[in-house]
Amino acid sequence: MIRVAINGYGNLGRGAEQAISKAEDMELVVVFTRRDPAAITTQGAPVAHVDDMPQWADRVDVCLNCGGSATDLAEQGPASAAHFTTVDSFDIHAQIPDYFASVDAAARQAGNLALISTGWDPGLFSMLRVLGEAILPDGATTTFWGPGVSQGHSDAVRRVEGVVDARQYTLPVESTVEAVRAGDEVELTTRSMHRRECYVVAREGADLERIEREIATMPHYFADYETSISFISAEEMAAEHHGLPHGGLVVRRGETSAGVGQTMSFELQLASNPEFTGSVVVAMGRAAARMAGRGQTGACTVFDVTLADLSPRSPEELRAAYL
Amino acid sequence: MIRVAINGYGNLGRGAEQAISKAEDMELVVVFTRRDPAAITTQGAPVAHVDDMPQWADRVDVCLNCGGSATDLAEQGPASAAHFTTVDSFDIHAQIPDYFASVDAAARQAGNLALISTGWDPGLFSMLRVLGEAILPDGATTTFWGPGVSQGHSDAVRRVEGVVDARQYTLPVESTVEAVRAGDEVELTTRSMHRRECYVVAREGADLERIEREIATMPHYFADYETSISFISAEEMAAEHHGLPHGGLVVRRGETSAGVGQTMSFELQLASNPEFTGSVVVAMGRAAARMAGRGQTGACTVFDVTLADLSPRSPEELRAAYL
Repeated sequence: MIRVAINGYGNLGRGAEQAISKAEDMELVVVFTRRDPAAITTQGAPVAHVDDMPQWADRVDVCLNCGGSATDLAEQGPASAAHFTTVDSFDIHAQIPDYFASVDAAARQAGNLALISTGWDPGLFSMLRVLGEAILPDGATTTFWGPGVSQGHSDAVRRVEGVVDARQYTLPVESTVEAVRAGDEVELTTRSMHRRECYVVAREGADLERIEREIATMPHYFADYETSISFISAEEMAAEHHGLPHGGLVVRRGETSAGVGQTMSFELQLASNPEFTGSVVVAMGRAAARMAGRGQTGACTVFDVTLADLSPRSPEELRAAYL
Repeated sequence: MIRVAINGYGNLGRGAEQAISKAEDMELVVVFTRRDPAAITTQGAPVAHVDDMPQWADRVDVCLNCGGSATDLAEQGPASAAHFTTVDSFDIHAQIPDYFASVDAAARQAGNLALISTGWDPGLFSMLRVLGEAILPDGATTTFWGPGVSQGHSDAVRRVEGVVDARQYTLPVESTVEAVRAGDEVELTTRSMHRRECYVVAREGADLERIEREIATMPHYFADYETSISFISAEEMAAEHHGLPHGGLVVRRGETSAGVGQTMSFELQLASNPEFTGSVVVAMGRAAARMAGRGQTGACTVFDVTLADLSPRSPEELRAAYL
């Protein structure tokens, strides 16, 4: 059994806990938190304070860092790599080279391995981008996101006077997706690629036309998009919009010779973004534990992971049943 | 530059030649053939007889075996692995373990590496099957093929009395694909998963109704499928049905917790099957040459290949621009 620690018990940490329960070759041995451990109830694993990490070094094969990129990981990444093989889902694209360097230094010094920026974007989508370009070098890669909830846009709608609650979904524009996959000429702009859907609970008696206008013309958030706005009841909001769905699509379209177009598409339709991301992080944890077990050290990415290491199955099983 | 040999100059060999011309870090140095080398005209590379392979051992980094699985590869695979790092697209699923063992023995004895069963199925589809199961262990994987030409079925139609020419396409049943992706209950049978489209050029004055009936009721080939039959002119056949399109779809649908469904889909839409397969084999050739350059020997599969090795770009570039 691969012994796993989860560092940070928010949405992603709980998603990872759930995924570990589905992995027959992995067990959750501890959850680390910066909060009071007594205040946290897991599905069964003990909870320890992050300051006590060093005491767990010999009892953990891989530590899944489930903190947020904006505030937590810059510190958590290098700090935990000093004690454990680690996996994270650092996702601030522009900062990845710096983050890689800082985690790499900490991991190398301690003789550990740190697999950074897993999840689905960065992560699986990144893998498909590299795969698509390697096979079809003469072409273009396009990424669409959604249908998915945007927390920032939902918050922006909630700040409009008269709005009690709101949920905003970003969706790919289907006709543009089809054009990209077919290799048809299409201009890729903010407006042509994605549209926005808002579900709004308004205060009784509020001026719905004004709310609609204020949302649709909000700069940065909605003014550049085709936006549909639906007013619903608080009951419908609770019943239909409580999940955290997301997803998206990476399309590689290329020519192998003049006029011969080939299309590779990878699509995710996720009912729960944190549970899916947790599932990716857990599979990457299996790979990281195995790579570390073979003596690999330093920081690495999804581009350095083989499918054999991601799978719980033996190479013989994989060759016999999955090729 | 990675120096590449192509062994076998049929559709796939020519597809690989085309793909090498698009790869900036690879050059085609020789084409091997069992025929008379003087009878073959390449895009520019010299042609040598397979018996002269040993003389090329020091001038080739990777040899792409482009023969057919049924007859050629069982012999070609082990024979060429004695001289070169090799890549092939061996695709007889049931024979893969035996083929792996025989190529592995030859490659190990010579200190070479042999990457077998690349292409798209087996190959890319296999990779997505393993990826899907590793991330969503509680679920099911479904593979659909097409739209694509089936040579065997086209031949079967051509044998019907009164048929001058024919082309048969296999297509996924769209409603079943959608049900699988949505996680809806659907029975997966021969008939529910795929349908067949036939384009037929009939002899003038032939009994079209009889031809239609004979095709639709043909055991094994069409009787178990919904089959549509269109009679067209020889001109339309030449204009619209000369390509070798293919493709398909691997869907992994799983639950991360009770009632929370997640779907991963990977789809190929290929205008030319041999050119795309050639492009995969060439990218795998890059990876095999690099793995061999690090001293790896023996047989391996797509499950053992990293994306970093498939890509012509440096790890730094990949981290900065593709994550």
